[in-house]
Amino acid sequence: MFTPATDANLADLRAALPDGTFKDATDSYLTEPRGRWQGAGTVVAPATTDAVSRILAYCNDHRIAVVPYGGGTGLVGGQLMGEGAVPLVLSLERMTAIRDRFPSENVLVVEAGAILADVQAEAERLGRHFPLSLASEGSARIGGLLSTNAGGVNVLRYGNARAQCLGLEVVRPDGTIWHGLTRLRKDNTGYDLRDLFIGAEGTLGIITAAALRMVPQPVRIGAAMMAVPSPQAALDLLGIAQGRLGDGISAFEIIHRQGLDFLAEVGPDVKPPFAETPDWMVLIDVGLPAGLSPDTALEDLFTEAVAADLVIDGVIAQSMADRAAFWKIRESIPEANRRIGSISSHDISVPLSAVPEFIARGAPVLAEIGHFRINCFGHLGDGNLHYNVFPMPGRNRADYEAERPAVKKAVHDLAHAFGGSVSAEHGVGRLKVGDLETYSDPAKLAMMRAIKDALDPHGIMNPGAVLRQA
Amino acid sequence: MFTPATDANLADLRAALPDGTFKDATDSYLTEPRGRWQGAGTVVAPATTDAVSRILAYCNDHRIAVVPYGGGTGLVGGQLMGEGAVPLVLSLERMTAIRDRFPSENVLVVEAGAILADVQAEAERLGRHFPLSLASEGSARIGGLLSTNAGGVNVLRYGNARAQCLGLEVVRPDGTIWHGLTRLRKDNTGYDLRDLFIGAEGTLGIITAAALRMVPQPVRIGAAMMAVPSPQAALDLLGIAQGRLGDGISAFEIIHRQGLDFLAEVGPDVKPPFAETPDWMVLIDVGLPAGLSPDTALEDLFTEAVAADLVIDGVIAQSMADRAAFWKIRESIPEANRRIGSISSHDISVPLSAVPEFIARGAPVLAEIGHFRINCFGHLGDGNLHYNVFPMPGRNRADYEAERPAVKKAVHDLAHAFGGSVSAEHGVGRLKVGDLETYSDPAKLAMMRAIKDALDPHGIMNPGAVLRQA
Repeated sequence: MFTPATDANLADLRAALPDGTFKDATDSYLTEPRGRWQGAGTVVAPATTDAVSRILAYCNDHRIAVVPYGGGTGLVGGQLMGEGAVPLVLSLERMTAIRDRFPSENVLVVEAGAILADVQAEAERLGRHFPLSLASEGSARIGGLLSTNAGGVNVLRYGNARAQCLGLEVVRPDGTIWHGLTRLRKDNTGYDLRDLFIGAEGTLGIITAAALRMVPQPVRIGAAMMAVPSPQAALDLLGIAQGRLGDGISAFEIIHRQGLDFLAEVGPDVKPPFAETPDWMVLIDVGLPAGLSPDTALEDLFTEAVAADLVIDGVIAQSMADRAAFWKIRESIPEANRRIGSISSHDISVPLSAVPEFIARGAPVLAEIGHFRINCFGHLGDGNLHYNVFPMPGRNRADYEAERPAVKKAVHDLAHAFGGSVSAEHGVGRLKVGDLETYSDPAKLAMMRAIKDALDPHGIMNPGAVLRQA
Repeated sequence: MFTPATDANLADLRAALPDGTFKDATDSYLTEPRGRWQGAGTVVAPATTDAVSRILAYCNDHRIAVVPYGGGTGLVGGQLMGEGAVPLVLSLERMTAIRDRFPSENVLVVEAGAILADVQAEAERLGRHFPLSLASEGSARIGGLLSTNAGGVNVLRYGNARAQCLGLEVVRPDGTIWHGLTRLRKDNTGYDLRDLFIGAEGTLGIITAAALRMVPQPVRIGAAMMAVPSPQAALDLLGIAQGRLGDGISAFEIIHRQGLDFLAEVGPDVKPPFAETPDWMVLIDVGLPAGLSPDTALEDLFTEAVAADLVIDGVIAQSMADRAAFWKIRESIPEANRRIGSISSHDISVPLSAVPEFIARGAPVLAEIGHFRINCFGHLGDGNLHYNVFPMPGRNRADYEAERPAVKKAVHDLAHAFGGSVSAEHGVGRLKVGDLETYSDPAKLAMMRAIKDALDPHGIMNPGAVLRQA
């Protein structure tokens, strides 16, 4: 359907675009962050929406595939095209401006290349808070975060990336620009195109700027680690916590002892929260209004939960340093996982009440395939588990090549059987196109295909991502 | 593009559908709630998703227009088709079941015909809260509320109808069913079809059921009325209130003295909150976590606001009866407006920081057209104003036929000039199709048209609503 960019095409583009638009196609653009796949392409980094528009219009006319590129941190290959005609990789890295600040409206208008940590910092400078937060925030860019509807640790309270966005500027495949950078909180004039582009993974057009929603800074912040007897107890604890503190619960993360065992085995070095590590722990983060003490609120919660046999032990942060130490444990687990080397990693979600049974049934299902270590952790408050499967001690992931497909299928089948998702927050990219086909309702797939064909009739936008190349 | 249903068509449908599906086409189905327009049509009320599917498939094959009908409370004519081939009016009134309850997940699965007040009551029975709340909640149905992305008084805290929905069951125009009733909090597998159907006003398919998000019941509820010197002071007060109490601010409504004057003039009978009615008042509603007293929180806010010259006077509810009395004032204003009879009513939104200037410029712009009374009130926290224009005393709306188009255009032009919306929460329906064309970005309109053609290729779904008939 499309052709590789010829030298003549590239010469045309060079002539039409300002100096500095073309970049060397270094490894960082063409390698998956965990080194698992390799892409290909010519790299352009336009500095303006107008330049993006000219590039897309040209590529649309000449049927050249375009792969949008943000921070390159995606874990499902959405930013890498390794098969088919060599594409143009369009990096937003030069479009990093904060275009406008409206602190009294809690709004920032930023370009798609702005790095998440910079946006967070700008919000803090304005006395506000930008609640999207995830491990790769030092390199992930707003355009990619929105295009993948990124999640992270604060979804429970603030929602995912979609919920942080009021408006978008988008360049369509034919180069026309949708000026949708509204700062309105309410606008019921027509179809919700914003939410269609958010999560479309660059397959319908390129997000070039966004009006982002900030929130007031939580006045009183606190955290606790609590040891729970079971995942069901953790869920019941969440119910009690939300009953008492409502939206004050900012994050509710579950951690299995396997994660702490991995940390002890391979690092990074962290201080375990309990003298004796329990099987299951939760990390609770609270952000409370003026007049409420996080310590007292967490102590009261602890007392009620102990009385209800939902909590065995607990540590309440006495300082911001304590809280940071709790979060360091949680945030070091993915690195420990990487050092151990997973056989298969899964970013699944199930309905909240199904979490305990999913966990209970996962281990025996996998035991039928072989002997593994399971590290199950993640955003319990959202029903989103990172359910990752590892080699037994003394072996490594390469020893399990034969079992890997069966492991992945077993975990995904199980999540699906509970009405779950096989990609809760990482997206589809190219890695999960087959999963999407396997597990999606046919009517959903048919509508997605119809929308893709309607909005990108030549199929130039990130071909092969989300939907198989037609 | 489509034809009226012939007697033969109707006979086919009667034969294919259970007894009781056809209803008399009484006035309630074919009259706008304010009596402003008249529709036409044959009325069917299928009792099951399967019956909806069979009806749509037949109509799609025979090119018969279908107008989905919920509670009939819409104010923009989306539920009434008065021109073109006489359609089938498909009422969801017999699909009112609550299919499933998941209190531990804060989820209810309900059919599209469920009435909002019944859903609210069911949530309360389960010890939860369903936060969508608006004047017509006693008759508005969930399918219509989602199809129009309804707003109301709690959007500030909880978001509009879209934010209350996790998943949908939808019948497509060709009769295929999208089984998208997920209860997942996170699911990044493909395009966001849910949010596309929400707000599409029945032009892409028919919502037959929804998985709705409940929230924990706010533990401590309170309210206050405060007199403010200006709209800018009201906005600044909102900023302080959110800084102190964050999401604890559930509603923040602005009221102009004109509303209270109308109430005094024509009723309904309410007790004015202040001995001397100020020009501007705000109604603040709070829902706070355990451990915080609404009285104390509102008193502290009042004290700070008075010191900052943002508030002149205030009354804090000392009881639920006081709170109800405050809300009765706010909720009686639309009825007083109806009794006075507006020349032109507008449901506009502007960016929050533009509200004061919009209000300041509105009066002189209208004074160039004629002499009017303006009642401006609404959801200040969302930037959503009901900016309604009324006759001078002793005259009535019929005296202003000549001025009406100029009034409407002036208000809409002004909102648009501030980057605002000409339909913040009521939708487009058939009333505002021209406004949508006038004020929308062309790229947005082109994409909407492409999506409509892709998902409803024969254009049978609610023709003429949102988009002009092709």
